[in-house]
Amino acid sequence: MEVNRLLLKRIVENALSEDVGSGDLTTEIVFNKNEIAVGKFVAKEEGIIAGLPVAEQVFITLDPWINWRQLVEDGTKVSAGHTIAEINGSVQAILSGERTSLNFLQRLSAIATKTNLFVEKAAKYGVEILDTRKTTPGLRALEKYAVRVGGGINHRFGLYDAAMIKDNHIEEAGSIVKAVALLKESLPITVKIEVEVETMEQIEEALACKVDIIMLDNMPYEEMKKAVDMIDGKALVEASGKINLDTIENAAAAGVNYISVGALTHSIQSLDISLDLYKP
Amino acid sequence: MEVNRLLLKRIVENALSEDVGSGDLTTEIVFNKNEIAVGKFVAKEEGIIAGLPVAEQVFITLDPWINWRQLVEDGTKVSAGHTIAEINGSVQAILSGERTSLNFLQRLSAIATKTNLFVEKAAKYGVEILDTRKTTPGLRALEKYAVRVGGGINHRFGLYDAAMIKDNHIEEAGSIVKAVALLKESLPITVKIEVEVETMEQIEEALACKVDIIMLDNMPYEEMKKAVDMIDGKALVEASGKINLDTIENAAAAGVNYISVGALTHSIQSLDISLDLYKP
Amino acid sequence: MEVNRLLLKRIVENALSEDVGSGDLTTEIVFNKNEIAVGKFVAKEEGIIAGLPVAEQVFITLDPWINWRQLVEDGTKVSAGHTIAEINGSVQAILSGERTSLNFLQRLSAIATKTNLFVEKAAKYGVEILDTRKTTPGLRALEKYAVRVGGGINHRFGLYDAAMIKDNHIEEAGSIVKAVALLKESLPITVKIEVEVETMEQIEEALACKVDIIMLDNMPYEEMKKAVDMIDGKALVEASGKINLDTIENAAAAGVNYISVGALTHSIQSLDISLDLYKP
Amino acid sequence: MEVNRLLLKRIVENALSEDVGSGDLTTEIVFNKNEIAVGKFVAKEEGIIAGLPVAEQVFITLDPWINWRQLVEDGTKVSAGHTIAEINGSVQAILSGERTSLNFLQRLSAIATKTNLFVEKAAKYGVEILDTRKTTPGLRALEKYAVRVGGGINHRFGLYDAAMIKDNHIEEAGSIVKAVALLKESLPITVKIEVEVETMEQIEEALACKVDIIMLDNMPYEEMKKAVDMIDGKALVEASGKINLDTIENAAAAGVNYISVGALTHSIQSLDISLDLYKP
Amino acid sequence: MEVNRLLLKRIVENALSEDVGSGDLTTEIVFNKNEIAVGKFVAKEEGIIAGLPVAEQVFITLDPWINWRQLVEDGTKVSAGHTIAEINGSVQAILSGERTSLNFLQRLSAIATKTNLFVEKAAKYGVEILDTRKTTPGLRALEKYAVRVGGGINHRFGLYDAAMIKDNHIEEAGSIVKAVALLKESLPITVKIEVEVETMEQIEEALACKVDIIMLDNMPYEEMKKAVDMIDGKALVEASGKINLDTIENAAAAGVNYISVGALTHSIQSLDISLDLYKP
Amino acid sequence: MEVNRLLLKRIVENALSEDVGSGDLTTEIVFNKNEIAVGKFVAKEEGIIAGLPVAEQVFITLDPWINWRQLVEDGTKVSAGHTIAEINGSVQAILSGERTSLNFLQRLSAIATKTNLFVEKAAKYGVEILDTRKTTPGLRALEKYAVRVGGGINHRFGLYDAAMIKDNHIEEAGSIVKAVALLKESLPITVKIEVEVETMEQIEEALACKVDIIMLDNMPYEEMKKAVDMIDGKALVEASGKINLDTIENAAAAGVNYISVGALTHSIQSLDISLDLYKP
Repeated sequence: MEVNRLLLKRIVENALSEDVGSGDLTTEIVFNKNEIAVGKFVAKEEGIIAGLPVAEQVFITLDPWINWRQLVEDGTKVSAGHTIAEINGSVQAILSGERTSLNFLQRLSAIATKTNLFVEKAAKYGVEILDTRKTTPGLRALEKYAVRVGGGINHRFGLYDAAMIKDNHIEEAGSIVKAVALLKESLPITVKIEVEVETMEQIEEALACKVDIIMLDNMPYEEMKKAVDMIDGKALVEASGKINLDTIENAAAAGVNYISVGALTHSIQSLDISLDLYKP
Repeated sequence: MEVNRLLLKRIVENALSEDVGSGDLTTEIVFNKNEIAVGKFVAKEEGIIAGLPVAEQVFITLDPWINWRQLVEDGTKVSAGHTIAEINGSVQAILSGERTSLNFLQRLSAIATKTNLFVEKAAKYGVEILDTRKTTPGLRALEKYAVRVGGGINHRFGLYDAAMIKDNHIEEAGSIVKAVALLKESLPITVKIEVEVETMEQIEEALACKVDIIMLDNMPYEEMKKAVDMIDGKALVEASGKINLDTIENAAAAGVNYISVGALTHSIQSLDISLDLYKP
Repeated sequence: MEVNRLLLKRIVENALSEDVGSGDLTTEIVFNKNEIAVGKFVAKEEGIIAGLPVAEQVFITLDPWINWRQLVEDGTKVSAGHTIAEINGSVQAILSGERTSLNFLQRLSAIATKTNLFVEKAAKYGVEILDTRKTTPGLRALEKYAVRVGGGINHRFGLYDAAMIKDNHIEEAGSIVKAVALLKESLPITVKIEVEVETMEQIEEALACKVDIIMLDNMPYEEMKKAVDMIDGKALVEASGKINLDTIENAAAAGVNYISVGALTHSIQSLDISLDLYKP
Repeated sequence: MEVNRLLLKRIVENALSEDVGSGDLTTEIVFNKNEIAVGKFVAKEEGIIAGLPVAEQVFITLDPWINWRQLVEDGTKVSAGHTIAEINGSVQAILSGERTSLNFLQRLSAIATKTNLFVEKAAKYGVEILDTRKTTPGLRALEKYAVRVGGGINHRFGLYDAAMIKDNHIEEAGSIVKAVALLKESLPITVKIEVEVETMEQIEEALACKVDIIMLDNMPYEEMKKAVDMIDGKALVEASGKINLDTIENAAAAGVNYISVGALTHSIQSLDISLDLYKP
Repeated sequence: MEVNRLLLKRIVENALSEDVGSGDLTTEIVFNKNEIAVGKFVAKEEGIIAGLPVAEQVFITLDPWINWRQLVEDGTKVSAGHTIAEINGSVQAILSGERTSLNFLQRLSAIATKTNLFVEKAAKYGVEILDTRKTTPGLRALEKYAVRVGGGINHRFGLYDAAMIKDNHIEEAGSIVKAVALLKESLPITVKIEVEVETMEQIEEALACKVDIIMLDNMPYEEMKKAVDMIDGKALVEASGKINLDTIENAAAAGVNYISVGALTHSIQSLDISLDLYKP
Repeated sequence: MEVNRLLLKRIVENALSEDVGSGDLTTEIVFNKNEIAVGKFVAKEEGIIAGLPVAEQVFITLDPWINWRQLVEDGTKVSAGHTIAEINGSVQAILSGERTSLNFLQRLSAIATKTNLFVEKAAKYGVEILDTRKTTPGLRALEKYAVRVGGGINHRFGLYDAAMIKDNHIEEAGSIVKAVALLKESLPITVKIEVEVETMEQIEEALACKVDIIMLDNMPYEEMKKAVDMIDGKALVEASGKINLDTIENAAAAGVNYISVGALTHSIQSLDISLDLYKP
């Protein structure tokens, strides 16, 4: 599942307008409009590549005649020194698009790489990794794509495609049962209901009204295990709450179906990738 | 220097469209349109706050009648538990804007906080910290604002407001001197020229043609010192190349004027801030 | 659940640009800029009103100082002659916004009214009415809102918020089971799966892989009844296929949970509403 | 006269963003990106086809490499079972664009078909059919195009391209003569003036000041005849006021030049057209 | 007739984005955000003022709390030294909007002033001055407004609101008669037809098919007089063809109804207006 | 240095939407969609051509299949009668784009031509000509491009890419020295500082704090000479203040480096260029 073409076009045009503005002063003066070159994207450290179609879109937006050739597909784990894509065409377009394409590629590859670390640890327990809405404003579709590339599963895209009952909603409605009743009356039939719970009593309530997903919020691992037993397959179970690479196996061992990790997108170390230019 | 109002409006509308989409299913069903509440933004860990005007804009966009009160200004260092802003008004607007406002605030505060760590180390040597173009696509103006809030200085905003001669430009033009000559002939008179150099010979060349800024790219600290001596105040000197908190004092001690750090924006750990809701 | 403010603003600005263009030649010449008047929206035939907040937005966009007062809420059934809203302010704004506000109001009220006819017939059987994606391009959020106002329930908003397996998908995957397996592997966990079936065998398959919703596509009413028996509450059941006011009770009597009706939005008779002007 | 290319592009992109959003979950998961198929648009009932270039634009927007072949031109009357266009290319694009293309095609064909029913009845009397501004917000250019395809003639496109004096304007100015005088002083010279009249006195006034078009508003057919006699070719005559297929011949027989029918666009029955997929 | 509010807003936002970009570096650093001042717009030479509502919109866009007070209305002839408007509020907004507001005001006042010179000369002969489509791309609505302010009359706004038959159309259709016939068959009934003619034979043809306006293109003044006699009130007559202030009376004396002057908008001398700042 | 592709696309689409609107009534009715022709752009008076890529973009936007062939490059001085470009393709596109393309071409060529007159006079003294921010709102990038084509040099593009200290800033800060100090503390390091001065004392101050550019504002030529002597190469010197073709040599002889001329863009005489159509 790739990123929608219209969305991708709009995000890339926005990014290029931001960086190129009224023009790339240095490159447009030093290089002739008709000069061509070859550029190679090379990984400088090990990681999982994500975002190649975004990088391609950057250059196509600058020059529709550019040639782009991927040497790996998104999702490939490469080691340092690996050439991941080649570009062939106008030097002006290659240099003007360099930083923007790398900004996308390094960020998305970082997300895929980080996701994959969690995925591998959880996989041993048959548990899957979820993303959250803690994404960069404006780039959610791309970042959720990168999570998928890294082997993760997407949680809801926004406030509009799933219902998530949190403490404030419960308090307002009076109880989980009442909140769910209100939602079932008005929600589109295609929308799932998830409840964020903290206690066994809340879980019982949630099961009573047949919610689709139960999120165990910041629950101690012992209690998590009990929760999973109580739920017993009657709803999907998601563990949440600052779970990191050190603690993830505890949560996974508790038997939940999913573990969601905000840090996949809100805290990242850019993956080092460079673009090298060769004159033909 | 704040972020331009028109730009801020557009970025925030874009972020809200992404998250809220056709509507906040849960909150709009559970809460009545006219209910009000008080929300408090609380820092959950120590750091420097940045982005409060962005958070305010999120809520004003959702409901122009909302009341926003900052308890600290951007740039304040707060400790865990500190309330940084209060919001008063429609619960629907507060809950629908919660995630988007936090996504901005946590990211920008993280940048300000990280910048400040570098700034403090460099300050002892009278050296200043610069950002780079390695920012999140679409958020450059906000991220560069956060760098300023953290005590850093901005480098160029894009390809359009400064000329930066890199290896490819030098090779194309034939020499630094030739590249600078080409630029001086065509650049707007208000645009500065910076050259990225790797050797003493290149520095000599750069000084000969009176560039404004010389960037020492990945230079060993010993050599950096010699470079600073050779330049001797005839150009501003910027050190660049994966300098981190462990190595920054080496660069600073070498006597450069500025150290640029891509990681200020490309690799961040979200600062933990929460929004707590109180019914009046 | 109202229509998202940002979306509403954009749709209304688009509609006004289309109708007013470079200016309302007649009104701007004949009326003085400062003249005011009172306008009354009056239903000219019986129906359920929907779209008053949209009409309000039309006038606010033309003149932020206009006063708008609703005499009924959306969802009220009114008879011919009933005044549903009053507007007070600039004559220029009232006349320039008249046609656009009526175009919205008459269309949305028509949808709410038509929906309600189906809802009332189905209600006797405890069955609910669903809309479809057969909406007017560009107005889906408003039209789905009108369906809710008329007592209907929304189906998915687009291709992005639910999975719907149709004949082509089944054929491609090889079977319903295989298609569902593919989807469960990649879908966001918050997304429901619906399958369109035509035979009892397909229903068995769908139940085997625990889909959320089964749509009986153009099924004879006798068979529909058997299908409902076979499904026996293990999935939600939706009947579909050109069901109209004459045939709906057959489908409802078959025991399905939902009946979807494309004609709610693709074939409508505008509800007659007028705007009368009074000089103060 | 087709629909302006830039306008068409914008309307179609807007419609696709609405339906496809962040992606077509089902199709993108079940189908491979490179698979191709043939799709056939088939009329399921008799009618006049309108909107084929709009449907084409839907698919080209999703995939510029798609092949589109029209088997009939817009304006052709086809019977049930007739294949009207074929599409050849990416299955993903065909399925993702199916609903949006049909939503346009069914609506526009419905308008052309309905228009043509009126046109045929009026043609016997040498009278022509006009549309109104009672169009779907955002789709006016397309709907007016469909009216032309059905044999109708367009009335003004908006408030900006013709002056139309209604009762409120007359009351404000003091008389038709005064209103016309005000307009003639300020209107662009290329703009025609039409007056809506209800009495013979008003017609006399309108003739006295040489307006271009006189609209007989809700006039009894007997009176209409007298009005036509009085006007005697000195202005174009338009009859208006909920004229339907049963009453149109009365108005036509009265000798007016044009009959305008709001229902052409505000009340339609979608024309049934389907898209069938064939794997090659 | 003012400029449509939505259009004005869009044009001004576009202009400010262009000039202010990511921020007004000088003013935002030197001035405190809360400082206020008074600004006075003063005419530095004699002329007719146009564009005050545009200037107001510039400042309101930068700061909704600014106070704007016009001392004259658009259309007033002022002499050097006259204060035309005062602004009171944020210094940052006043200084950041200064250049953009003046760019609009000086250009629009120049157009109004130039138009008025032609209007005064033509008025003696009862002839009116028309503008053309030779306007600045993106500013047509504003420039046509300025022409009205200067006493001129607008010609068509674009290719969409009037039909203008030129030599190429005549040649293609075969004759003026044939071109008019084609147009009458398909044009909206509200659209006027104008023909550009060069000979008496063409005028005869144009009269035969009852066009609304005849444009005498680059016709010698003697011949123009004959043309007016031949037309004899059966169509409006427009003279066109590089008529300037020296030659306009010749054309006016020939008895035409209108003289169109492209130079009103394509060749202007900015009217000198300044903005002076006073600290309170 | 050409105009950024994304910017050009947006400006041209905006211009065409303005002129073509819902369609070119005359051309689309008279000409068949498939007819082709050849168009020739011919200079009708001597001047320097600028804007050919903009004209090309106009036609490509209307019809991507059009063929465009430039016979001269932007910057060529042509005499009356010279054919500067040929276009080959759809007559509808050629005629619908005629006025818009000419509006761009005539304006930009006028700017290039006017600039060149100043450039030639200044060149004798080794002085260069600068533009200002007194450009047409929305067209600054194009107009600054035309200035470069005419041999001029660009000044800053907006408030965002250079700091310019004027009287109000000096007064607010207390002195030039204080204003510069404030700026140096906060400005991006890549931004130059220019000061507008009127007296020798101010120049001394400006030199003391090492500003990059000193602008002599409306200074008598005698004093200008002294100023240049005092500055003695320690800053770039720009003369400003309604310098025209009669007075420019006085300023140039004073030894300044640059002379800025607002009239290059705020007061122009459109260069006469026509488009002639030939049927093949």
